[in-house]
Amino acid sequence: MTHDPSGEDSLIARYFKPLATDPGAFGLVDDAAIIPADGDDIVVNTDAIVEGVHYLPDDPPGTIARKALRVNLSDLAAKGAVPAGFLLTLALRQADEAWLSAFAHGLGEDATAFGCPLLGGDTVSTPGPVMISITAWGRVPRGRMVHRFGARPGDCVMVTGTIGDAGLGLAVQKGGVEAAALADDPAAREMLVDRYRVPQPRVALAAAVRDFATASMDVSDGLAGDLTKLCSASGVSADIALSRLPTSSAGAKLLALGATRLENLISGGDDYEIMCTVPATRREAFTAAAVARGIAVSDIGSIVEGPAAPRFFDGQGCAVTLKRLSFSHF
Amino acid sequence: MTHDPSGEDSLIARYFKPLATDPGAFGLVDDAAIIPADGDDIVVNTDAIVEGVHYLPDDPPGTIARKALRVNLSDLAAKGAVPAGFLLTLALRQADEAWLSAFAHGLGEDATAFGCPLLGGDTVSTPGPVMISITAWGRVPRGRMVHRFGARPGDCVMVTGTIGDAGLGLAVQKGGVEAAALADDPAAREMLVDRYRVPQPRVALAAAVRDFATASMDVSDGLAGDLTKLCSASGVSADIALSRLPTSSAGAKLLALGATRLENLISGGDDYEIMCTVPATRREAFTAAAVARGIAVSDIGSIVEGPAAPRFFDGQGCAVTLKRLSFSHF
Repeated sequence: MTHDPSGEDSLIARYFKPLATDPGAFGLVDDAAIIPADGDDIVVNTDAIVEGVHYLPDDPPGTIARKALRVNLSDLAAKGAVPAGFLLTLALRQADEAWLSAFAHGLGEDATAFGCPLLGGDTVSTPGPVMISITAWGRVPRGRMVHRFGARPGDCVMVTGTIGDAGLGLAVQKGGVEAAALADDPAAREMLVDRYRVPQPRVALAAAVRDFATASMDVSDGLAGDLTKLCSASGVSADIALSRLPTSSAGAKLLALGATRLENLISGGDDYEIMCTVPATRREAFTAAAVARGIAVSDIGSIVEGPAAPRFFDGQGCAVTLKRLSFSHF
Repeated sequence: MTHDPSGEDSLIARYFKPLATDPGAFGLVDDAAIIPADGDDIVVNTDAIVEGVHYLPDDPPGTIARKALRVNLSDLAAKGAVPAGFLLTLALRQADEAWLSAFAHGLGEDATAFGCPLLGGDTVSTPGPVMISITAWGRVPRGRMVHRFGARPGDCVMVTGTIGDAGLGLAVQKGGVEAAALADDPAAREMLVDRYRVPQPRVALAAAVRDFATASMDVSDGLAGDLTKLCSASGVSADIALSRLPTSSAGAKLLALGATRLENLISGGDDYEIMCTVPATRREAFTAAAVARGIAVSDIGSIVEGPAAPRFFDGQGCAVTLKRLSFSHF
């Protein structure tokens, strides 16, 4: 009989204790963690990823871990919050040490890179698919969280990075027509798959979002559907020029080859870019602040009055009808 | 094309928005929730329950929801924290409206009863078993969270309620010898099963734990193993008198019939009682404070010096050897 007999505790000590660098984590030996009071509001978010749904079973464990954390960091950034810590719930079929070691390594690297330490969690067994649920929190000065509501007619609709790559990456992984069209371009295929596996949360943009955005959210379920939600919450509509949609070179190539369409790019999930609305008079200053942090932003359209769903116009100025706005689980 | 086209959002609006009564939840239309700064430390905890592991597939959905929340409230109470809110992650095979409706109803009743509103969450699809992961937080005055460490030689080891009932309830549900022994006592069987399905978190004891306990944790994986963890974290050992272990009348009946043993009661999981250490000079005051809140507490032994694992003595003063300390997932 030893002091620490359980396999679960032993796993936690080996793989996750090294990540628990925050004093509020108490080295993971306590039952709960502390977020100390310091006068900031705490912004909390939770997102889960499921094997076979949000990632493929043979994805590298390190990228799975990074994605699980980053989808949460993306939400925090869109709310203007600076990451402060996270709790990890891991449902595993068995304790596969090689998998866990690689998972913890990727998670630890990201926790350090984004200044978001592990503060606690729960490890449970499941007969079903692996599931990773993370609750992350960040800090904003009191009352400064940026909401989905708040967009006003005349505001510019801004998005970071490029749109649609992750959806294309998933299609490439599944061997769709997109993979065939890029048969001679392994770098493009790899870039798209990497965008699906490892999102780039725009953590560095949090302060600029707080300073400039009237409304903000991350694009996770498809730009069209997510913009619809932002407009609905704000009681406004939007006119979007698809010709101004930022695409990667691989995305542009697939569009040029006819292997995908703009409609697919704006309804595919997993972008994890920030979409926010900024008063037209502040667009240049916001863009400059983003560029100063190494993040490209694009103005894709305008907020307009009214309760209608956002409209998307093609290069000829014709409204595009979308069959599907975004990914839904049910 | 409507403003809220997705099945997932529609489910959330129907079943969970009514539970999001806290202003920090923003009616669940935002991507994150706010825990406003008010000078208190925030204590966070996360616990997940998995179908077929922590509850049986045909358990009533309302009791599953209550258990998912209560296992977290139990941790917060043991840390001396007053519940303030929770995030819910729900992984479902399909959107079964009858199940969801009953689940949300039970969850909502408990959220109200314990003053712990829903502030947000995530709903995902899974091909596997249903999994419910909850992150709950509570408030403590700055620096006042009660830890696993802090127990000192001479302190009394106190536990709330009765020990072992939930483990017996699971055995009864599975039709073990315990069920046969209680064949003529349906009330006892029902009480034990209910203890397994719906824990009674000792939320009302949080202030007394803060005021009197030197160390505290909830008993969730079996008293013997959990006490071992508390002693290990505190750098002490303990001597426990099993004759003073608080048992229910159903538990006592099964002991008398030889259908279970004390060793089973202290290594079975799911008690969700508080175990804390209290200086001997303050034991009476702690007991009075607990009784004033309607909670029975029992003194089951003492903290002693040394690094040894806790020892458990039977009525004759003989040390009992335990084959298994507690439940472990791996």
